[in-house]
Amino acid sequence: MNNAFKKLLELGQSIQTVESIERVLFWDQETMMPKNGITIKTMQKSAIASIIHQKKTSQELEKTLKSLIDFKTNTFVTHDLDEDQKRCTQLMRDDFLKAKKLPDDFIQKLAVLSSEATHVWIEARKENDFKRFLPYLEQIIDLMKQKSDLIGFEDHPYDAHIDDYEPGMTTRKLTALFTPLKKDLIQLTKDYQTIPIEDSCLYGEFDESLQMQLCKALLIDFGLNPDNHRLDESAHPFCMPVHRLDLRLTTHLNPSCFYQCISSSIHECGHALYEQGHHPDFFGLPIGQYASMGIHESQSKFYETMIGQSHAFWKGFYPKILQAFPDQMQKVSLDSFYRAINKVSPSLIRIYADEVTYSLHIILRFEIEKAFMDGSLKARELPEYWKTKMQEYLGIIPHNDSEGCLQDIHWASALFGYFPTYALGNLYAAELFNAIQKSFPDLDKRLENGDYHFLKDWLGKHVHEHGRRYTPERLIERATGQKVTASTFIAYLKKKYEALKTL
Amino acid sequence: MNNAFKKLLELGQSIQTVESIERVLFWDQETMMPKNGITIKTMQKSAIASIIHQKKTSQELEKTLKSLIDFKTNTFVTHDLDEDQKRCTQLMRDDFLKAKKLPDDFIQKLAVLSSEATHVWIEARKENDFKRFLPYLEQIIDLMKQKSDLIGFEDHPYDAHIDDYEPGMTTRKLTALFTPLKKDLIQLTKDYQTIPIEDSCLYGEFDESLQMQLCKALLIDFGLNPDNHRLDESAHPFCMPVHRLDLRLTTHLNPSCFYQCISSSIHECGHALYEQGHHPDFFGLPIGQYASMGIHESQSKFYETMIGQSHAFWKGFYPKILQAFPDQMQKVSLDSFYRAINKVSPSLIRIYADEVTYSLHIILRFEIEKAFMDGSLKARELPEYWKTKMQEYLGIIPHNDSEGCLQDIHWASALFGYFPTYALGNLYAAELFNAIQKSFPDLDKRLENGDYHFLKDWLGKHVHEHGRRYTPERLIERATGQKVTASTFIAYLKKKYEALKTL
Repeated sequence: MNNAFKKLLELGQSIQTVESIERVLFWDQETMMPKNGITIKTMQKSAIASIIHQKKTSQELEKTLKSLIDFKTNTFVTHDLDEDQKRCTQLMRDDFLKAKKLPDDFIQKLAVLSSEATHVWIEARKENDFKRFLPYLEQIIDLMKQKSDLIGFEDHPYDAHIDDYEPGMTTRKLTALFTPLKKDLIQLTKDYQTIPIEDSCLYGEFDESLQMQLCKALLIDFGLNPDNHRLDESAHPFCMPVHRLDLRLTTHLNPSCFYQCISSSIHECGHALYEQGHHPDFFGLPIGQYASMGIHESQSKFYETMIGQSHAFWKGFYPKILQAFPDQMQKVSLDSFYRAINKVSPSLIRIYADEVTYSLHIILRFEIEKAFMDGSLKARELPEYWKTKMQEYLGIIPHNDSEGCLQDIHWASALFGYFPTYALGNLYAAELFNAIQKSFPDLDKRLENGDYHFLKDWLGKHVHEHGRRYTPERLIERATGQKVTASTFIAYLKKKYEALKTL
Repeated sequence: MNNAFKKLLELGQSIQTVESIERVLFWDQETMMPKNGITIKTMQKSAIASIIHQKKTSQELEKTLKSLIDFKTNTFVTHDLDEDQKRCTQLMRDDFLKAKKLPDDFIQKLAVLSSEATHVWIEARKENDFKRFLPYLEQIIDLMKQKSDLIGFEDHPYDAHIDDYEPGMTTRKLTALFTPLKKDLIQLTKDYQTIPIEDSCLYGEFDESLQMQLCKALLIDFGLNPDNHRLDESAHPFCMPVHRLDLRLTTHLNPSCFYQCISSSIHECGHALYEQGHHPDFFGLPIGQYASMGIHESQSKFYETMIGQSHAFWKGFYPKILQAFPDQMQKVSLDSFYRAINKVSPSLIRIYADEVTYSLHIILRFEIEKAFMDGSLKARELPEYWKTKMQEYLGIIPHNDSEGCLQDIHWASALFGYFPTYALGNLYAAELFNAIQKSFPDLDKRLENGDYHFLKDWLGKHVHEHGRRYTPERLIERATGQKVTASTFIAYLKKKYEALKTL
C-alpha cells in the first residue's frame, strides 16, 4: 500500500474511532444513564465533538491528502492508487475542504444556539407557544443562510444543506422528484382513505417482556448477528451503529399495542443490517461508511414497509403473534390484521403517518426549508403556512402548533436538509424492492416461510458493501438498472392498495 | 478568580471530562457491550488514553501552571490564590511533572506489553502454566524498574510505584505499618480459625431478581441518590464513577448464595458514596478527586466489613432477608447467620478471604513487589517463594500456581504498588470506625433501626468533600485525631471476635 495512503487510512480510522465513542455516549444517554448524568454527558459530548472537529481539520490530514492529490486541479500526485483508494482519497479531500469552510467560531455558535433552541423548543411544544420558539428559529435560519454562504452553492442556497445528508442531491433535482410524487400522493390519499378498515384489533393488553422477546428473535431472523448487536428500550426508537460489529438498537414498548414495537424494531433492523454489511476492509475510509442518509433510510423503510407491512411477511409471522398473545388475537384474522396495519388515514403527526401519507409530511417540510433559505418564507409566517399546506396536501388542519409546526426537533437542532432524505428513502426503497421482486420471483413464498436472509445478502452485495463508493443516485442505478423516479414508488403503492381493497 | 487559575480550572475540567468518557467505555465493556464490540472498544480505549496523555502533558497546561507557580522553587508567582487554589495548583504541577517524566515511547511500550501480558496471563492461569507467563513477568519487572528510575526515588525503587496510588506513602512507612500488623494477624488467624462455625446456612437457592431488588434498595438506604447511580451485573463487581452524579455500580449474582451479592453491593456502595460526596465546586481540580486508592478502599471496606459484617447492621437488616427468602432462611437464626458471614478460615484466594486473613494476602504481595524492585527476588523464584510464605502466614500451601502466584491480574497489568492500598484501606477504615464509634455512642442502635445516613454525612464532612486537600495520612489524622497505626485495626478485630466467640 502507498505509504501516504497508509497514513490516510490511519487518520481516517482515528476519526472514525472517536466518532464511535460519540455514538456510545449518545446511546448511553438515551438508554442507561442515571438521570443526573446529564451534566457530565453534556460536557463529554462537547469534548468529543471538539476532538472530532480538530481531527477532521488537522494539518496532518491536510498534508497527507496533499501528498496524494492536488487540491487545486483535483488530480492525483501518486500513481499507485487503485480505483477504491482514489475514490476514498477524493471523498476525504472533499470532506476536509468542506469541514475547513466552517470556521471554529461558527461551529461553536451553532452548537450553543442549537442546544439552547432545543431546550426552548421542548418547552414551547409542551406549552403550545410558537412565539417563544420564534426568535430561536429566526436565529437558526440566519445561521443556516450563513452556512450556505460559507459552504457555497451554484444554484440554490438550500443545496449546501441537502448535500450534507445526500451528497450530489440538489434542490432542483429534489423538486423534479417531489413534484409528481406530491401530485400522485395527494390523489392516492383521497382514494385510499375511504377504504373501510377497522384497526381497533391492534389494541389491547400485551405483556412487554413478551413483545421484547418477539422483537429480539425477529432481529436475528432478519440476519443481525447476535454477537454484533443489542436491543433496548428508549423513548424514541433508534439504531446507533457504534461499529459494524457493535450495533445498538432500541425500540419503544407500548403495553396497549405490540405492533408499534415490532414495526420500530424492523425499521431499526434495516439501519443495523446496512451498517453490519459495511465492507470490513474499509473501516476509517469512505467506502466503509454509509452512502447517504437517504440510502440509510431506504434500508429501514424497505424492511419496515415493503417487507414488514407486506401480506406475505405476516402470513409467515402471524402464527408467532397468535402463540404469544392467543387471548388477545385469536379472533383477529390474518387479513383483518394486515388491513389494520396498512390503514390510510391522514394525520397530523409525521412519525405516526401511514405509508401513503408519510412522504407528503416530508414534502411540506422540504418546501418550507427551501422557502426559508431563499427568503420567500419568514419564520413568523410558519404556523399559517403550515396550516394552509396541511389542508391542501392532507385535507386536515392542526388545532395548535404543537401538533403542527412545532412537532419535530429538526429545526431546533439546526438539521436543515435532513427531512428530504426520509422521502428519498421511500423512493430508493421502492426501486430496490422492484429489483428484488424481479430477481426473486418466489419472493412471497420465501417471506411466508420466514426466509429473510436472501434480502440481507442481496442488499449487502448491491448496497451495503459499497459504502460511499458511488453517489447515492448511481448506487441505486447500479443496483436496480434504472434511475430513481417517483413513479416506481407510486406504482408499488397502487398495486398494494388495489389488492388490499379486494381482500 | 485569578485568570490563570480560571484557565487551569478549564484545562483540569477538560482532562477530567475525557477521563469520564474512558470510564463510560470501561463500564460499557463490562456490562452492556455486544460480544463482538471488543474490536472497536480496544481502539476506543487506546484513542482516549492517548488523548488523555496529550492533555495531561500539553504545553498549554505547562504554560498555565508556570504563570501561577515557579517550577524550580515551587513558590507562587501570583498572590491572589486562596489556600485551596494553592493546593490545587501545587498538585497539578506535581501531576504534570510526573506525567512528563514518562516519555511517550515508554507509555506505548508499557501499554503494548501489559496488554499482551494480560492476554498470556489469562491463558497461563487457565492452564496452570507459570512458565508461559514468566518471560512477560520478567519484562514487566524490568519496565517497572525503568519506571522507578524515570520517576526517581529517595530511598527505595518501590517508592516510585507506591506513590502512584498512595501519595506520600513510602516503602519504609508501609514496612513500619505492616510488620506489627503481620505478626498480630498471624496470631489472630491461629486463634480464631478454631472457633466452631457452621456456614452451610449461607447456601441454597435464591431468586436472582429478588437478590437484585434487595441490593438496589440497600444502596438507596445507605444514601446513594437514585438519580445518581445504577446497579448492574458483571463478572467482577466494580464501581465506575463516571462523575459525582453518574455512578455505575455492578454486583455479582450467585443463585446459590445471596450474601455474596449483598456484600459486594455494600462494598461498591462505599466507593460510590465517596465519589458522590466530592465537593461540587471542584470538578476538574484535585480537591474534587479521591485522595488515594487507600482512602477509596477504606470507604468500601468500612461499609463492607465494619458495617456490613456487624451484628447491629444484621439485627436491623435480617428481617428483610427473612421476608425475601422465608423458605430458605426461616430456620437460620440471626446469630448463626452473623457467625457464618464472619467465619475465619485461611484460604488460597485473596478475593474470597475473610476480614482477619485478608491483609496477610496483601502483605505477601507487598513483600514480593518490594523484593522484585530491589532485585532480592527474581521472577522465576516466585512460585516457591509464594508457597513458603503462604505456609508461614496462613498455614496453607496452594496445590498449583493458578490458585497461587497466578491468581491476580495486577502484575500482568503492570499495576505495581497498588496491592498495599487494599491493606491500608483496612487500617484507615478501622481508624474511621473508631472515631465514628466515639462520635455516636448510639451507633449500634442506629444501625439496628436501619439508620445509615449519618455515616455518609460524617464521612462526607471528614473525608469525601476534602478530595486531595490533604495527604491520605493527614486526612485520616484530621478526621480521627490520631495517626494511622496497625493497632486500631487489630483492637477492632479482637473486640469483634472475642464477642463473637461467646455469642
